[in-house]
Amino acid sequence: MLRAAVRMFNERGYHTTSLDDVAASLGISKPLIYHYLGAKEQVLFECLRLGISRLREAVRQAEALQGNGLERLKLFLCIYAQVIMDDFGRCVIRTGDEVLAPESRAQFRALKREIDEALRRFLQAASDDGSARISDVKLTAFGLAGALNWTARWQEAEGDLPPEPLAAKLVDILLRGIEPRG
Amino acid sequence: MLRAAVRMFNERGYHTTSLDDVAASLGISKPLIYHYLGAKEQVLFECLRLGISRLREAVRQAEALQGNGLERLKLFLCIYAQVIMDDFGRCVIRTGDEVLAPESRAQFRALKREIDEALRRFLQAASDDGSARISDVKLTAFGLAGALNWTARWQEAEGDLPPEPLAAKLVDILLRGIEPRG
Repeated sequence: MLRAAVRMFNERGYHTTSLDDVAASLGISKPLIYHYLGAKEQVLFECLRLGISRLREAVRQAEALQGNGLERLKLFLCIYAQVIMDDFGRCVIRTGDEVLAPESRAQFRALKREIDEALRRFLQAASDDGSARISDVKLTAFGLAGALNWTARWQEAEGDLPPEPLAAKLVDILLRGIEPRG
Repeated sequence: MLRAAVRMFNERGYHTTSLDDVAASLGISKPLIYHYLGAKEQVLFECLRLGISRLREAVRQAEALQGNGLERLKLFLCIYAQVIMDDFGRCVIRTGDEVLAPESRAQFRALKREIDEALRRFLQAASDDGSARISDVKLTAFGLAGALNWTARWQEAEGDLPPEPLAAKLVDILLRGIEPRG
């Protein structure tokens, strides 16, 4: 049910999708959707939470990698990009947080901040152990996140490559600027 | 009037802003807004057209620069970033095109495609004249555009630097990966 809802939010936009549409696409009744998922804003928030939890999982996987800071950063970005190209991750990026009620908005922002901070930690660690040359961790983090987040807007339309190799290729291009030269 | 409308669209989201709100913020009547600007979707489309026309202007300015391909690319990206950080450019980025009616959506997409194609031309030219090393023009274009477009989501909140130096710094970081080494 959540998968059907998030696809409609992504394709048609949150405001123009009703739970009636979601119910109809699944061939079930709207009361059933309400029963399992709650109101539309709760459904959206649940989709966002799921997307963020996958990004958190990317943080954990990269932290567990044996290797230097640049290798951990690279793994994190590759998984991050793949999450963003999937339905729930795409929803995290496409949703302007002004659509959420104040309380869920604050929660959503806190969750996103956690991911931003993890990215900065990976960059800082790669800079500290000398595996990358980074002049400005914060701006580099915004640049990398932006380049990957933007895939939520174009990757489907440009589908020459499946998400995994596309993510790897894009991350390679993006990291070329901070790799040590020699 | 357009400036007031675009700011509200950007801050509150298009769907949750009514022309009544825009009229109220300007202390004028809604019929007056309708008279000058038309219906809400036309207002949005006008804001988008204005944003795109500034990006087109960036293309023209960069094309007119005496210099090598990398220098023209850099100038284009710096102006591009500044446009995106301003109200109308930000609206171009924040607006998912599913909110437009089919005809305006097609026009908006064609206009955005024109800007994408200009960016690819700048990259190709910098690669051709040897001022940059680019392995994949299309993916590099998506990466650069994404990194800059994403400023529409964070630059206001992070306002340590005004748009111009922020744009220059970010573009420097982004272009480090394609600059010749030595």
